[in-house]
Amino acid sequence: MSDRAASRGTKPSAAARRGGRIALAHGGGGQLTDELIEHTILPRLGNELLNELLDAAMLDLGAGQRLAMTIDSYVVQPWRFPGGDIGRLAVCGTVNDLAVSGARPIGLALAMIVSEGFATGDLEVILDSVAAAASDAGVHVVTGDTKAIGRRSIPGPDHDGDVFLITAGVGRAATDVRLGPKHVRCGDRLLINGPIGDHGLAIMLAREMPEIQSPLRSDVAPLNRLIEAVLASHGEAVSFMRDPTRSGLAGLGADLARHSGLHVTFDEKAIEVRPAAEHAAEMLGLDPLEIANEGKVVLAVRASAVDAVLKTLRAHPLGEQARCIGAVGEERDGLCELRTALGGRRVVAKPYGEQLPRIC
Amino acid sequence: MSDRAASRGTKPSAAARRGGRIALAHGGGGQLTDELIEHTILPRLGNELLNELLDAAMLDLGAGQRLAMTIDSYVVQPWRFPGGDIGRLAVCGTVNDLAVSGARPIGLALAMIVSEGFATGDLEVILDSVAAAASDAGVHVVTGDTKAIGRRSIPGPDHDGDVFLITAGVGRAATDVRLGPKHVRCGDRLLINGPIGDHGLAIMLAREMPEIQSPLRSDVAPLNRLIEAVLASHGEAVSFMRDPTRSGLAGLGADLARHSGLHVTFDEKAIEVRPAAEHAAEMLGLDPLEIANEGKVVLAVRASAVDAVLKTLRAHPLGEQARCIGAVGEERDGLCELRTALGGRRVVAKPYGEQLPRIC
Repeated sequence: MSDRAASRGTKPSAAARRGGRIALAHGGGGQLTDELIEHTILPRLGNELLNELLDAAMLDLGAGQRLAMTIDSYVVQPWRFPGGDIGRLAVCGTVNDLAVSGARPIGLALAMIVSEGFATGDLEVILDSVAAAASDAGVHVVTGDTKAIGRRSIPGPDHDGDVFLITAGVGRAATDVRLGPKHVRCGDRLLINGPIGDHGLAIMLAREMPEIQSPLRSDVAPLNRLIEAVLASHGEAVSFMRDPTRSGLAGLGADLARHSGLHVTFDEKAIEVRPAAEHAAEMLGLDPLEIANEGKVVLAVRASAVDAVLKTLRAHPLGEQARCIGAVGEERDGLCELRTALGGRRVVAKPYGEQLPRIC
Repeated sequence: MSDRAASRGTKPSAAARRGGRIALAHGGGGQLTDELIEHTILPRLGNELLNELLDAAMLDLGAGQRLAMTIDSYVVQPWRFPGGDIGRLAVCGTVNDLAVSGARPIGLALAMIVSEGFATGDLEVILDSVAAAASDAGVHVVTGDTKAIGRRSIPGPDHDGDVFLITAGVGRAATDVRLGPKHVRCGDRLLINGPIGDHGLAIMLAREMPEIQSPLRSDVAPLNRLIEAVLASHGEAVSFMRDPTRSGLAGLGADLARHSGLHVTFDEKAIEVRPAAEHAAEMLGLDPLEIANEGKVVLAVRASAVDAVLKTLRAHPLGEQARCIGAVGEERDGLCELRTALGGRRVVAKPYGEQLPRIC
């Protein structure tokens, strides 16, 4: 406890001394979020579990049991978007954080912060979505809290008022599953369960260019049953799983390379982007590689198990378009590289901020 | 799961059909919050655990273990107040919800929603408070999330911008502790660990009458060690514990009477209110009985154990002023009654909304 007691006197960070202020990009999941965590949060709250910065913390319950715990805030705007809404997102995002940690969700806690003037009927639509998504995932909301805050502006045709959902989740972790960048080895292959970019691009397109008709829909979905199927039959072959949400596949690849210390290569030709998503990305001037997904998981698996894992993924409705999109190489340079469709190579960096505020 | 699947088509509530909108009082913890829970939330998300509406849900882990899980949002304004700040509040409120459920906190998850323009230095002050309070409570923040939202107005001398903290907590519950309104019996006495009203009144006074000099300070404190001391030595004698936060002692008494079906009597003469709090309540026109506390716990204990429990409470710095303030009577009327200092009697109702928005 001495390290924590000492933190009572933690010195202001360089950013604070310069009179720094929070920017939207601090919440974007990119480099700026990393800086906030490293310079502001960890010096104060750091401990063995928090320092791991995993999607879910693993608490030891004794008797060979581990408890996974995670929390996420959802502030997406507008709260309803093509393919889903904030209620579905709040359940799936948290369930997926547990699932990629190798845990089976056993309970969700839901907090709602709603601004004065928000329509009760809209809140009911959101709660219906929470219920439906929880049912899809096979988990219950076991506890909750509601707070009301003052309005920013009068709700009207252009503005419903604010609604923020915060979901914490707990899950039971199998003790024999070892997942994480440290478990990844040279030669492991990188698989994904489908095309990228749908979630962030669907929201951005609807928000920025509402006049455009597009079939693009968010991919938001609970991945726990898909992941459980893989772990049940090929658990020993999986070394790492993560959902490419904020900062997208680019952020995931850069983080995996950095934390494993190995070289990660993505093959652009193998990464599927739907025509509608590609079109939206072009119009918005965005790179699908950096866009958040809410129904995708990237798995690192031993090369010998690739075919078997792909078969299991493709047998599930959420994995029909599963593909191998890259590999972990021998170089110990901690870099992520994209082999482009034209045969070139470029380093994939973690996006600095986030071009897309409030998409999750 | 069939009951949940059916909820996909839950009909709009009467409030929604009337075009109802969320009011600040919906988040106040009073009757209006109860109505929202009963008519809007439970018909959609209801399940065996959520329906209990306990401070913390109890998940069965098997092997004789129970896991307590809780979540709370903190939206207090201003974020810094006499005696504490939102960081200390976010830790203590959640730790106390676990503690009054008879659980020992084993991990906290912290989500932060911060508006663009919020000063990094202020965020660091808040995180220092989180760290100090977590250290006081002997628990770690094991996982977290940060999101940034657009500003409502330009931060300046009168407005720092918004910061909302959401804390989920998990705790391990002793299997031999049985707590709750159902376990309360006629003859049980009601104890509290000190004077009431300090938290809500300190904030309201500072906010509404900043020119008034007052020694009043929030009582915000983690109660887990105090409660663990009582349970360790007198666990079998305690039938109920709850912290009188939103809606105060009045809400707690009305709820306890309603859910136990018994008659709850508070003795006004025995309920301590500090002179500064009484003065503030008079100026603000508020009833201390309805004011939120953040460092108080009400315990129902068997009459034979009252002296022993009071002794244990008073041996702890947070319980020095512990008192017996009431009793559970024989009448099965589900009512809470106050015996006034002048010898009169009045029914104590749960406040409708909350006179004090955003004090927790």
